[in-house]
Amino acid sequence: MKVKINELQRLMHQILTSRYFTSPEAKDIVEVLLYAEISGKKTQGIIKFLGTEPIQDIKPLYKPKIIKETQSSVFIDGGHNPGMLVAKMATELAITKCSQNGFAIIGANNSYSSTGAIGYYANEIAKHDLIGIVMSGTPKAVAPYGSIDRLIGINPIAFGFPTENDPLVFDIATAAITWYGLVKAKIMGQKLPEGVAVDELGNPTKDPEKAMKGALLTFGENRKMSGLSIVIELFTGALVGAIDSDTDGKWYSGNLFIAIDPNLFIGREKLKKNSTLLINKIKKSRPSSEYEKVIIPGEMALKSRKDAEAKGIVEVDVKVYSEMLLLTKKLEK
Amino acid sequence: MKVKINELQRLMHQILTSRYFTSPEAKDIVEVLLYAEISGKKTQGIIKFLGTEPIQDIKPLYKPKIIKETQSSVFIDGGHNPGMLVAKMATELAITKCSQNGFAIIGANNSYSSTGAIGYYANEIAKHDLIGIVMSGTPKAVAPYGSIDRLIGINPIAFGFPTENDPLVFDIATAAITWYGLVKAKIMGQKLPEGVAVDELGNPTKDPEKAMKGALLTFGENRKMSGLSIVIELFTGALVGAIDSDTDGKWYSGNLFIAIDPNLFIGREKLKKNSTLLINKIKKSRPSSEYEKVIIPGEMALKSRKDAEAKGIVEVDVKVYSEMLLLTKKLEK
Repeated sequence: MKVKINELQRLMHQILTSRYFTSPEAKDIVEVLLYAEISGKKTQGIIKFLGTEPIQDIKPLYKPKIIKETQSSVFIDGGHNPGMLVAKMATELAITKCSQNGFAIIGANNSYSSTGAIGYYANEIAKHDLIGIVMSGTPKAVAPYGSIDRLIGINPIAFGFPTENDPLVFDIATAAITWYGLVKAKIMGQKLPEGVAVDELGNPTKDPEKAMKGALLTFGENRKMSGLSIVIELFTGALVGAIDSDTDGKWYSGNLFIAIDPNLFIGREKLKKNSTLLINKIKKSRPSSEYEKVIIPGEMALKSRKDAEAKGIVEVDVKVYSEMLLLTKKLEK
Repeated sequence: MKVKINELQRLMHQILTSRYFTSPEAKDIVEVLLYAEISGKKTQGIIKFLGTEPIQDIKPLYKPKIIKETQSSVFIDGGHNPGMLVAKMATELAITKCSQNGFAIIGANNSYSSTGAIGYYANEIAKHDLIGIVMSGTPKAVAPYGSIDRLIGINPIAFGFPTENDPLVFDIATAAITWYGLVKAKIMGQKLPEGVAVDELGNPTKDPEKAMKGALLTFGENRKMSGLSIVIELFTGALVGAIDSDTDGKWYSGNLFIAIDPNLFIGREKLKKNSTLLINKIKKSRPSSEYEKVIIPGEMALKSRKDAEAKGIVEVDVKVYSEMLLLTKKLEK
C-alpha cells in the first residue's frame, strides 16, 4: 500500500518515543529506517518494529561512550543502544576525524540491534567527499561455506564513493538472506528461496522457522563470499571484542567504520571526476543478452529513494504497516 | 615435475638479474613469486616469466618514489617497476607507519605489472601483529555483471589477520579467472571452464584466445562480486590516479595497502586470542554432506607452503619450467 512519507515518519517516531527514546534519538533511528524503506531494502526498514526483537523494545543501559581515542581512531562502547544510534555517532566521528586527519577508523561494540541498512552510513561519509567503508556484525546465523553450523553473522559491508553526482553506494549482506528476510517470510507465510538455508541437521530447507533453528548460507554458496564474511566477522567481532557475544545468549554487536580522504592521494575533485568516468563507462557499456541496460551498484536503490522523495510517498507492505498501527493503538492504551 | 626450491630460486634470480634488475630487487621479486608458486597459486608464480608481458622484460623508468606523505599515509609513484617491487616498498611503509601511529594507508600507481599473489603482502603485515588489507588493480579484462565490455580489472583483494598461530590470509580475485589463468590455458592448450569468459560479441566462450579478445566475467556471475570488483577498481584506479591507465594502451596499475593496529581497539594479544577462537570453532564445526571437514580461508595454501618448505621441493608445471630453462639458455648466449 502507498503511505505518505511524513505520516510513516510520524508513526515511527511515536512508537519509539513512547518507549525508551528521546525525540532526537527517535529522529536518528527513523532516518536510518526510512532510508532503507524508501531504498527498497524492506528487510532493513519498518519491519524492524516487528519480529523477535522489535527495535522499540530495546532498553539502552547508557549513552554510547568513547572508551579509547587517538587522533584518527575511536573505540565506542554502544551501551546496548540500537545499532543505529551507535552507528550515527561513529559516522559523525569518522567524518570529523577524517576531515581533520585524512583518515579515520571507528570501532564499536555493545550495540543491541542491527545497524539497519549500512549503505546509509557509507552514503553519509561519501556526501562529505570522503570514501566510506562500513561493516556490521550481527547475531551468528550463518554457516561458513562447507559447514552447517551457525558461526558467523549476516555480516553486511558497504562502501560509499564520492562522484560528481550522488555517491556510489555498494551495500551487500554476505549471507544469502538477511535475518529480517527470514522474519518477513515467516510473517508473510512465505517459503524461502532455494539455497539460502539449512535446518538443524544441515539439510536444505525453505521453511523460515526451520531455517531459524538451523543456519543461513553465505551468498552464492561459494568460498569467496564465505571468506569475506569470515573477514567481516573478525573485523566486527575479534577486533572490537564482540566475538564472545554468543556466550551469554545475547548479541552485543560490533561495527567498524573507515573514512578515507582522497586528498591523501589523487585529491577530492579528481577522485570525483575519475569515479564518475568509470560509472559512466559502465552504464554506457553493451549489456549482456539477459539485460536491457547495465546497472551500477546502488543505482536501483538510489532511483527508488529519489522517486519516493519526489512524490513524498512510499510503498509499504500492508501487513507490516497494519501491525505498526496496531502497535500504536496498544501504546495509546 | 618436482624441483628443488633453491634451484628454482637460483633460476628466477638469474633470469631477472640478467635483465634490468639488481640482485636485491631480483630477491624481492623472487620471494613474492615463490610464495605464490609454493602456495599452489600457480597463476601468480613462475608463469609470470612467460606470456605476453614477461616480468623480466619490464624496464623500470626510475625507482619507486614517494609523491605525497602524511603521518599515516604515503602516495607512491611506482616508476614503471614490476608491481612486486612497488608493493614490497608499500608493505614496509605500511608496517612502519602503522606500528608508529596505529594505522597506515599506502596508495601506489604506475606499477608496470601485477603485484603477484597479494596474500603475500597481507601475510607480511599480519606477521607484525597488524591487520592488513591489500587491493590491486590490473589491466581492464573483466566485464562488470550485466555488461559484456571489459571495463574493470581482475581486481584481487586480500586480508591478513594475526592469530595465535600463522596469520589467517584470505586472498581472492574478484574475476572468475585470472589473466595468467588465461595465459596458462593458452600455453597448455586447454579449454577454459564454463562461465568465466565471453568473446568479442559477448557470447560465452571456452577458448582462451577468444576470451583474451573478449572479456572475463566476475566470479560467481552475480551482482555482489561484481560490485566488490567495481569498488576495488575505484580504490586502485580512481583514488590513486590509475583510472586513465588504458588511454595510452598501457596499464600503469594502482594498488592500495591498509594496516590497522589492533591496539586501537581490543589490543593485539586479545585480537589474536579472539581470531584463533573463531578459526577453531569453524574448523571443528560440522561439515556439510559434500565435505569431510571444514576448511578456513587460506588453509590449503598455507599447508601447501609449509609442505614445500619442509621438503625444500615444489611441484612445478613441466612446460612452464622447460620454457624457463630455455630462457636462461637464450640469456647465456
